[in-house]
Amino acid sequence: MPHHPDRASDSASAPPPGGAQFFDNQTFGDQIFGDRLARLAAAAGTAGVHAVVISPGADLRYFAGHSVSSHERLTALVVPVVGQPQMVVPALERLGWTDSPVERLGIGFTTWIDGTDPYGSLAALLGPDAKVLAVDDHMPAVHVLSIEHAVSGSRLTLAGAIIGNLRMRKEPAEVAALAEVGAAIDRVQARIGEWLRVGRTEAEVAVDIASALVEEGHTGADFVIVGSGVNGASPHHEASSKVIEAGDPVVIDIGGPNAAGYYSDCTRTYRMAGDSGPISPKITDLAEFSEVYEIVRRAQQAGIDAVRPGVPAEAVDRAARQVIAEEGFGEYFITRTGHGIGLEVHEHPYLVSGNTMPLEEGMAFSIEPGIYLPGRFGVRIEDIVVVTSDGALLMNNAPKTLTVVGG
Amino acid sequence: MPHHPDRASDSASAPPPGGAQFFDNQTFGDQIFGDRLARLAAAAGTAGVHAVVISPGADLRYFAGHSVSSHERLTALVVPVVGQPQMVVPALERLGWTDSPVERLGIGFTTWIDGTDPYGSLAALLGPDAKVLAVDDHMPAVHVLSIEHAVSGSRLTLAGAIIGNLRMRKEPAEVAALAEVGAAIDRVQARIGEWLRVGRTEAEVAVDIASALVEEGHTGADFVIVGSGVNGASPHHEASSKVIEAGDPVVIDIGGPNAAGYYSDCTRTYRMAGDSGPISPKITDLAEFSEVYEIVRRAQQAGIDAVRPGVPAEAVDRAARQVIAEEGFGEYFITRTGHGIGLEVHEHPYLVSGNTMPLEEGMAFSIEPGIYLPGRFGVRIEDIVVVTSDGALLMNNAPKTLTVVGG
Repeated sequence: MPHHPDRASDSASAPPPGGAQFFDNQTFGDQIFGDRLARLAAAAGTAGVHAVVISPGADLRYFAGHSVSSHERLTALVVPVVGQPQMVVPALERLGWTDSPVERLGIGFTTWIDGTDPYGSLAALLGPDAKVLAVDDHMPAVHVLSIEHAVSGSRLTLAGAIIGNLRMRKEPAEVAALAEVGAAIDRVQARIGEWLRVGRTEAEVAVDIASALVEEGHTGADFVIVGSGVNGASPHHEASSKVIEAGDPVVIDIGGPNAAGYYSDCTRTYRMAGDSGPISPKITDLAEFSEVYEIVRRAQQAGIDAVRPGVPAEAVDRAARQVIAEEGFGEYFITRTGHGIGLEVHEHPYLVSGNTMPLEEGMAFSIEPGIYLPGRFGVRIEDIVVVTSDGALLMNNAPKTLTVVGG
Repeated sequence: MPHHPDRASDSASAPPPGGAQFFDNQTFGDQIFGDRLARLAAAAGTAGVHAVVISPGADLRYFAGHSVSSHERLTALVVPVVGQPQMVVPALERLGWTDSPVERLGIGFTTWIDGTDPYGSLAALLGPDAKVLAVDDHMPAVHVLSIEHAVSGSRLTLAGAIIGNLRMRKEPAEVAALAEVGAAIDRVQARIGEWLRVGRTEAEVAVDIASALVEEGHTGADFVIVGSGVNGASPHHEASSKVIEAGDPVVIDIGGPNAAGYYSDCTRTYRMAGDSGPISPKITDLAEFSEVYEIVRRAQQAGIDAVRPGVPAEAVDRAARQVIAEEGFGEYFITRTGHGIGLEVHEHPYLVSGNTMPLEEGMAFSIEPGIYLPGRFGVRIEDIVVVTSDGALLMNNAPKTLTVVGG
């Protein structure tokens, strides 16, 4: 192909009415992006930055209402503290920005053609005194070092803190998008018995789950973790050729984006019916599994109950961790309790010891404690919540009572 | 989920026998990776670099035989010119490297846990005089600037040229992987009439094609371009809610990775049966479309015929472009002629005016001239070829005679 479009899963998504060539953020009004750009310029000025430079990805989608997967060709949104934002795009891709929010807002486009120097074009957009440039955390090194070289006397810093500070406070339209995609993943978890059966491999189950994510309202499956038996003990595990056996605990951790680009992420741990028997000597007996499951369930609820405005992020982690530690499994809870979510699966805020940032209304994140017993099994339960004045508002409502599958 | 695995399409792939938790490069012997690491260190030394630092992605997969999608957490392969390579990985993800080629080669792993400083750990692996650090072109800014800060007195450069120089010369096992995945995408193009029908939307067709990519041997669909009628005139176009009409030319540009991580990429342009009639006044008549199609077909063949060792990369572009220019359509061939391909869809070498690099045996790239008539239609034909002593070896063999669909 001549250049790399967004993921096929995006291409294949059900587009909005009207025949637009891009599917993202069409449900958001344009002014939301103008407001975000104004807030970004103001925050950058406060931080002593002269201009922010944003490359394709979730940050660009957040501020411009559209993004591309541009690979080696430079696409950038330049947001100076003084003056108007500008887009730099390959000439070849200019058409793709037609009728995008950033175009409708009247922001100027500078195009460049293959063989010319896009970094020089970008540098020319900056005022002569714009030297402190904040780049988005995901910008590829090839752009970072080339911009640094093209802007004489520049000093590059990371824009991650400034941008994260804006993105982690969800606007009402974003909460609605998270609720919609949360309901979609709940519907997939509710159907898990259709695919999760003794004798199938994890990978076979994962293929079916991936299809169901699209059927239930995602534009694609971003991750499908099926961790059966000992594989559940590795939070890293994805899906393998391991055959699912009777009695196996199975961790199902799945998610993907909806048409607006907002992600779901929900984990439930199931148990296959039957006794694992002598073929799987390391699998625990049902009573022990049920005990561990109940500890994780209580820990997750304790995390949810700890959420309210003003509470430090780490307090949610501590609340969940305390339940597990008191039961003697503290050393087996080897992850942080949660991560922010929105246009990325992982974003600010992180619920981890040491993060003393007070929670605020509109922040969205996972609460996902787990117990991982190496060589044996694992249990994880995860929901997305949004902070409200009343505490945690759940974006997931799939049942958390222990479900035995295939009985 | 606790951290972000590779794409679901990878998770859902048919894994190799043996129950390994990762699916990449299992068909390659370990020593291929040891040899690549030795060549990288030697090339870096020649370039005046003290150490190369590689983050997750195709580069890591190429040198370590495995990669992850680690997002905000640092995973890096450190390859000093003097001394042994080392891996830096989050403790949480260490298990995922079990039995990977890089582990089997005996390369050391340094792990770090959430809350500690991974960049300090990386800096400690470097000798006191290792100051010129080359980072892979895709490394995210957050790691680039943090490494620069952690290594006192460091000077960062891009490793892209060094790495590209190695990666673009495919080894026999890589050519075999490209041939296998090329045959897989040919099978999808051969089935296009199953899904491409008048009255369906481009997006509906794209969903079916994406499924077929997996059925025919890809681990996922990476891109599915369905550009019907006027949409074919934009090389950028993906797939929209536009309904495919009688008489529409349709550009189908599709590809994805196989289990070894190597990509297919093949474009064919079809024409829907029937007359477009008065409802689509901008669509050309069949005779004009056939004429343009034939020009592109001849241009693509001219590009293929120009391939041989020692010929500059730009000569292939020139050969294809000349055919189109001589017919008076030069201004409508708005892209370069091709791009390298392997573990990425776009990599070196690029077939573009100004690239005087002589082609060598083993180089793999697309040849994909096109004519894009704004507001009317487009034609593109694309194959992947590998340079041999005899000229271009085609990785795609789908027919290039004009195919009318749904007649």
